Amino acid sequence: MNYPSKIIEKAINELASLPGIGKKTALRLALHILKQPVDSAVGLGEAIIALRKEVRYCKKCHNISDSDLCNICTNPRRDQQTICVVEDMKDVIAIESTNQFNGLYHVLGGIINPLMGVGPSHLNIDSLVQKIKETECKEVIFAFSANIEGDTTAFYISKKLAGTGVRVSSIARGIPIGLDLEYTDEITLGRSLLNRTIIQTSTQE
Amino acid sequence: MNYPSKIIEKAINELASLPGIGKKTALRLALHILKQPVDSAVGLGEAIIALRKEVRYCKKCHNISDSDLCNICTNPRRDQQTICVVEDMKDVIAIESTNQFNGLYHVLGGIINPLMGVGPSHLNIDSLVQKIKETECKEVIFAFSANIEGDTTAFYISKKLAGTGVRVSSIARGIPIGLDLEYTDEITLGRSLLNRTIIQTSTQE
Repeated sequence: MNYPSKIIEKAINELASLPGIGKKTALRLALHILKQPVDSAVGLGEAIIALRKEVRYCKKCHNISDSDLCNICTNPRRDQQTICVVEDMKDVIAIESTNQFNGLYHVLGGIINPLMGVGPSHLNIDSLVQKIKETECKEVIFAFSANIEGDTTAFYISKKLAGTGVRVSSIARGIPIGLDLEYTDEITLGRSLLNRTIIQTSTQE
Repeated sequence: MNYPSKIIEKAINELASLPGIGKKTALRLALHILKQPVDSAVGLGEAIIALRKEVRYCKKCHNISDSDLCNICTNPRRDQQTICVVEDMKDVIAIESTNQFNGLYHVLGGIINPLMGVGPSHLNIDSLVQKIKETECKEVIFAFSANIEGDTTAFYISKKLAGTGVRVSSIARGIPIGLDLEYTDEITLGRSLLNRTIIQTSTQE
């Protein structure tokens, strides 16, 4: 496409470098920004720069934080004996919004994906193993996406934790709430049969 | 959602203010920006600020431009007697990419839409009428989207141009190339029948 101005061309190319945003969407966003007040565009631009330059990570769980330790790690009312291992901050937010978990987190900063060039050394795995050896942690819960990369990462870390005496678990895979059985794929359905939950065990009278 | 850091919360809120970007997409974009080098995030932020602060508009056609007059208006090889009236820069790019138009443009900067509070006074209509009265323009082509707002704007401007002696036309509405007739909606099909193109007129021998 030929753009009438170098400035808009640069802005479109920068916006189109974001994931899920193509040239057409970038053009639409650029035209939207042009129609906004100057303050609004400056606010957006500065927020993006500040995000990359000023954000800090919790030294204990590697989650994004405003200070050296995040609100979750410093909260004494959280269960210090359970650590939930997740890929990134998105997953912490998702699990926090369930209100079903009161332990601590450990953010890996990615998932083992050899095809994308992400190996164990790129992730916060060593600090997790060290933390488990040094603290009173009793259970590690893997909360990864249900795909090969998630399974590989869970397998790798559980091997690393062998011999530490800590219990290692993974969040349940099964039929999502609200989904009709007939529309579930066969792999999910097969795993949900294997990992069935016992409701009642009746004994003979 | 509860974000672990004020900086990321601000960035997410700013990104989510863009059209078509919700909180979840904004979070995904923010996490992507965090994984990029600092230069890349600064480049994006600065391009957005420069876009709003430094961009200029062509004084003749109101299209976005790097200088006072845009490349199209200053090109002596373009047909000065035909002006294509469009809603915004997106449409100029779309029409230019067809290579079927060699005239000049006039960018209204929007479309008449009373429900959204956009009236004729918000658009570059007066300058269009004045330009047509003062120059050698012979034809005005309306290239608006095929909806009520486009039709209203075309009707309003054509009323304003009554008595100037200029020919007023609109781009053709009809079946898009490649679309099966059976899947065309009835309004488009009806208009394409009314505005049929004569292929041949045979006379009796």
